[in-house]
Amino acid sequence: MSPAASRVAHIGLGAIGLPMALRLAGAFPVRAYDIDESRLSAAVQGGATAAGSAAEAAAGSDVVVLAVRDQAQVEAALFGAGGVVGAGFRGVVLLTSTIGPAAVRVIAERLASSGIGLVDAPVSGGPVRAGEGDLLVLVGAAAEALALARPVLERLASTLTIVGGAAGDGQVFKTINQLLAGVHIAAAAEAIALARGLGVDPRTVISALSQGAGGSFMFADRGPRMLQAYGDGAEVKSRLDIFVKDMSIVTEVARQTHVATPLAAAAEQLYLLADSHGLGARDDSSVVTLLSPRHDDPEAA
Amino acid sequence: MSPAASRVAHIGLGAIGLPMALRLAGAFPVRAYDIDESRLSAAVQGGATAAGSAAEAAAGSDVVVLAVRDQAQVEAALFGAGGVVGAGFRGVVLLTSTIGPAAVRVIAERLASSGIGLVDAPVSGGPVRAGEGDLLVLVGAAAEALALARPVLERLASTLTIVGGAAGDGQVFKTINQLLAGVHIAAAAEAIALARGLGVDPRTVISALSQGAGGSFMFADRGPRMLQAYGDGAEVKSRLDIFVKDMSIVTEVARQTHVATPLAAAAEQLYLLADSHGLGARDDSSVVTLLSPRHDDPEAA
Repeated sequence: MSPAASRVAHIGLGAIGLPMALRLAGAFPVRAYDIDESRLSAAVQGGATAAGSAAEAAAGSDVVVLAVRDQAQVEAALFGAGGVVGAGFRGVVLLTSTIGPAAVRVIAERLASSGIGLVDAPVSGGPVRAGEGDLLVLVGAAAEALALARPVLERLASTLTIVGGAAGDGQVFKTINQLLAGVHIAAAAEAIALARGLGVDPRTVISALSQGAGGSFMFADRGPRMLQAYGDGAEVKSRLDIFVKDMSIVTEVARQTHVATPLAAAAEQLYLLADSHGLGARDDSSVVTLLSPRHDDPEAA
Repeated sequence: MSPAASRVAHIGLGAIGLPMALRLAGAFPVRAYDIDESRLSAAVQGGATAAGSAAEAAAGSDVVVLAVRDQAQVEAALFGAGGVVGAGFRGVVLLTSTIGPAAVRVIAERLASSGIGLVDAPVSGGPVRAGEGDLLVLVGAAAEALALARPVLERLASTLTIVGGAAGDGQVFKTINQLLAGVHIAAAAEAIALARGLGVDPRTVISALSQGAGGSFMFADRGPRMLQAYGDGAEVKSRLDIFVKDMSIVTEVARQTHVATPLAAAAEQLYLLADSHGLGARDDSSVVTLLSPRHDDPEAA
C-alpha cells in the first residue's frame, strides 16, 4: 500500500493527539473524533473531517490512530458503545497512548479475535515535536500490522524504533523511558529548589551544569520552564497528571517484575503530592513549586 | 604571573588527583605528595618531584593543588602535623575536593588568618578527562586568589565556570551537580534492572532511549558500564563510596536549607546499601548489581 492510500481515523485530540492529527491531515485523508467539540473543530480547521463517534471515524479507514489518555479511554474507544470494534473495522489500530505492557497485551488479544491488528506505538517528545513529525516512537508489532501502519508511523516519527515483534514491547520500552523521564524531572526540581534555597540563581545553575555529568534532557528542557512555573500563565506543554499515571505504570510493572525502584517510587509520591496540591492540570515543571513554594522566591517577594 | 612561573604543589594522587598531577607536570614544576608511595612513584614517573609531606610539597610553591578525598583529609593536609600551614606557605590553595559549602567556608577563614588564599574549585569529569585537561571546574574565589590560580585552573579545565566570588560558591554548585549526577546514576540502575527483569536487552534500551526525553549524561555513560558491572574485573573509573560521601553532603545541605529532596535521599540510601554490600570500592555503576543481582542475569546463568 502506498502512503497516499492510507485512510486514517484519528481518535483523541489532546495535547499530543491534536498536533499529531494535524500532521497526519497534511498527508492523508483523516477522519477525527474527540469527545471535546472544541478540539474536534481545531482538527477540522487543520484539514480533518469530523466524525460523530469512534465507530464513525473508523468505518472505511485503513488505520485507526488511538491517542487517548489512559487504559479506560482506550477500552471505551475500542470496545465501548460507538467504539471501533462495533463498526466492523478490519484494519490496524495504531495505539500511541502509554497504558503499560499488560493492558496492551490483553487489548491486542481482544482485537485479534475481531480480525484487527494492533501496533503498540507509544510516543515521546511533546506537542511541538508531535506537530513536526519529530516524535520518538517505540514500536512493538507483528510484521503484517506494522506494514499497514508504517506510512502513518513515518509521518509522525523522526525516530522510529522497532523494539519488538509483539504488542506490549513498545510499552515495555516506554515504561523504562518514563521511569527515567519522571525521575529526571523530579531531580531537576530538587536541584532548582536547592539552588533557590541556597540563594543562587537557578539560571546560572542550569547553564553551568546542564552540559556536564549532571546533565539530562529534562534538566535542560524543564529546568528553564521551572523558573516560569511560579507565574499563573505558565504554558502547559505536558500535564503533570500524566506523570501520576505513568509513574504508577512504572512502579506497578516493577512490582510485578520484582524489581525495586526506590527513586521511581519517590518520584511517584512527589507527583501524587503535587496533584493533591492542585497541580495536576498544570505543566509538569510546576512540581518545583511543591518543593520550593513561592514565598521562598526572592523575585516573587 | 605567567603560567610558566607557577610552582605547583600537588597533594592527593587518587583516581582524579594522579591524572591531574600528571597533566600539570606537563606544564609546571610540580612537587607531589600522597600517603600512598605507589601513587607517588607514578607521579614521579610522570615528571613530578616527590615530597615527603604536604609541608615539604608546599614550601616554595605558588599554588597548592589539594585533591584529597574528604573534609578530614583536607584538614589534615592543611592544618595537621606536616601540613601546608605549618610550612609557612603564603600562596593560594586550589581545593578540588567535594566537601560541601560550610566546611569550605570555615577552612577559607582559617587559611586567611595565615595569609593564605583559597580557591574553591571542585571538579567533575572523571579520571580520563582529568588527564586531558578536560574537566568541568566550578570556581568560587576572591579575585586575587583566582588570579594566582588561574594558570593552573586553565591547564585542568576545558570548562572553567566562575560561579561566585567567595570560597564555598563552587561547592554550592558542585553539591547541586552531585544531586543530579547521583540521582541520575541511580535512575539508570533502576532502568537497567527493570529492563533485565522484563527480559529485554539493556543494550537495546540504552540505544533506543538515551537520545530521547529519558536521556542523561549518566544513562549514556554509566548505562554501558552497568552491563559490565557483573564481571569481577570491571574497571573502577569512579568509586561508589564517593557517592556515599557526596549524597550525604547533598542531603545535609538540603536539610540545613529546609529543602525537601526525596529522590536525593532515596539515592543516598541506595549508595549506603550498596556500600554495606561491599560495593564501596567498586565502580559506581555496580549499584545496578544491588537492584538486579547476578542470578537474574540470563547471560550469566
